[in-house]
Amino acid sequence: MSYTSKDIKNIVAEIIEKKKDKGGVKSIYFVGCGGSLGALYPAKTFMEKEAVSLRSAWVSSNEFVHSTPKDFGENSIIVLACHKGNTPETIKAAELGKKVGAAVILLTWLEESEIVEFGDYVILYSFDASPDHLAGDIDYAGEKTLCALLVAVELVAQTEGYANYAKFQEGLGLISGIIKNARKHVAERSLAFAKEYKDDPVIYTMGSGAAYGAAYMESICIFMEMQWLNSSSIHTGEFFHGPFEITDKNRAFVIQINEGSTRELDERALTFLRKYGQRIEVLDAKELGLSTIDASVVDYFNHSLFNNVYPIYNHDLATERQHPLPTRRYMWKVEY
Amino acid sequence: MSYTSKDIKNIVAEIIEKKKDKGGVKSIYFVGCGGSLGALYPAKTFMEKEAVSLRSAWVSSNEFVHSTPKDFGENSIIVLACHKGNTPETIKAAELGKKVGAAVILLTWLEESEIVEFGDYVILYSFDASPDHLAGDIDYAGEKTLCALLVAVELVAQTEGYANYAKFQEGLGLISGIIKNARKHVAERSLAFAKEYKDDPVIYTMGSGAAYGAAYMESICIFMEMQWLNSSSIHTGEFFHGPFEITDKNRAFVIQINEGSTRELDERALTFLRKYGQRIEVLDAKELGLSTIDASVVDYFNHSLFNNVYPIYNHDLATERQHPLPTRRYMWKVEY
Repeated sequence: MSYTSKDIKNIVAEIIEKKKDKGGVKSIYFVGCGGSLGALYPAKTFMEKEAVSLRSAWVSSNEFVHSTPKDFGENSIIVLACHKGNTPETIKAAELGKKVGAAVILLTWLEESEIVEFGDYVILYSFDASPDHLAGDIDYAGEKTLCALLVAVELVAQTEGYANYAKFQEGLGLISGIIKNARKHVAERSLAFAKEYKDDPVIYTMGSGAAYGAAYMESICIFMEMQWLNSSSIHTGEFFHGPFEITDKNRAFVIQINEGSTRELDERALTFLRKYGQRIEVLDAKELGLSTIDASVVDYFNHSLFNNVYPIYNHDLATERQHPLPTRRYMWKVEY
Repeated sequence: MSYTSKDIKNIVAEIIEKKKDKGGVKSIYFVGCGGSLGALYPAKTFMEKEAVSLRSAWVSSNEFVHSTPKDFGENSIIVLACHKGNTPETIKAAELGKKVGAAVILLTWLEESEIVEFGDYVILYSFDASPDHLAGDIDYAGEKTLCALLVAVELVAQTEGYANYAKFQEGLGLISGIIKNARKHVAERSLAFAKEYKDDPVIYTMGSGAAYGAAYMESICIFMEMQWLNSSSIHTGEFFHGPFEITDKNRAFVIQINEGSTRELDERALTFLRKYGQRIEVLDAKELGLSTIDASVVDYFNHSLFNNVYPIYNHDLATERQHPLPTRRYMWKVEY
């Protein structure tokens, strides 16, 4: 049996009920690999900022399996993201969860995958499976990032309490429309971006807060994996403590400007880049319409916005570079 | 009044005693910027893996100040690293700690710095202040990384209990000698490395576990900041989920092979690099003598080993590239 994001409230309630006799839920782990790990980042930041007694961590699957937290067991929830359900490291982490008696929540896109036998709850997320994710006809509120975040929100709300719960639900209702508008909004500038940066050997991404996960995903999954470009995701708060020394008039940066509490960090980095750099692509959540979501919860929606605006850029860049996004030389092709 | 690493046991005991009436210590935050943040990484991994009820997080100073965890207050400890005590974002985080009634532990190298007024405990760490950190005549067990780690170890040991405490203390007694030997051991290969990689525009660092912090520091503080090279630190577990597609015979990688629980992740990445890449510098903790530290605690010492072997490489690379390590174009020179 599988579920969707609509069932998360009940799933969390059921887990809390089941764990009651065993001392309750004490920790939640977000585990995955690469883009699937990046997608769990907003949930990590939510737990770190909003929870008071619940423990949490965000760990790459193979590290989790080889260096498992001592408290991981029947008082834990593990949320795993695995797109096609066949990532060996993530399957092992799910298996470990099952073995130690944790509640295992699997976020996947394919119901008939290897991993589902280890899941107590299999949540099928929405995903734009069209070529280069261009169709844009899905409900973005049901994506893996927001499913994981919703697990975190429900867990805190149903145990410790979460004062901004209603505002968060409002945000969930708004995000899909905001994303769809934003994707149209960047269509022209995305073409210009592709022409400008098509010959760059290095492109950095930058971001902060929950949206750092989107910068990480764009850097490792698109620029490195799908375009074979050199890249790194730089936290805008860390930029001034090392990385900014690489800035010059030639270096390319894609910078996310959040709406919400860490906007000042992003703006500070942008001010510096505008002064000492020259080749900067700005994704500004405020300009892209995110401000209609309440300030108390908007932090957690930046990631989904940026992550879904990137495909427009990625498609144009790949086209201009004549390097189609599905091209791989190692992934799924050789043993590793 | 200031302290050294020798006082950490008593400092933690005093904090626990003082917090008793207020409900005890419930969370510990590791906060800093750039290299100072990287140095706190082993403490983060220790808390995530070894603690059972204590909450923790590892956050860049300005993000911590702008997006402060809800539970940060009189039941918290904040451990801040600030080399010269004058990093504005870290001073603000310390000030915030003081304001909310957290126990503020400052790790610094300069006693007479701006930050000390906000510290309940100022711990002066050992630091090799010789040019390019080549002298190697310090007690490495007293460095900031191990001071922060020791705070974490003492906190867990004195509250929840830490079964490997004695082994950890043994490790502390061994690490300085291991590092000194390892630095001599790499002297020749470091010269060869510098000649081989002096013209590379991009050098990646790779690592896992607690030592990922050392890979992060080498990437952002040395390659990017002090050599103006493009770089990123790639987690060896994440490598196969995106970044590995950039591998070819020309690309340069410095890879750390841990001793301990995540060694398998590092070895897997190395096997791949040896097959599809060609230009790989290997720092192997086993070969560098770390195995004399007990297996139950060795994970947490990899970072200090690698981080103190790098200066030998950094000096030779800077010399060969005729780009002295202290060269900056923005840091401390322009407003930002």
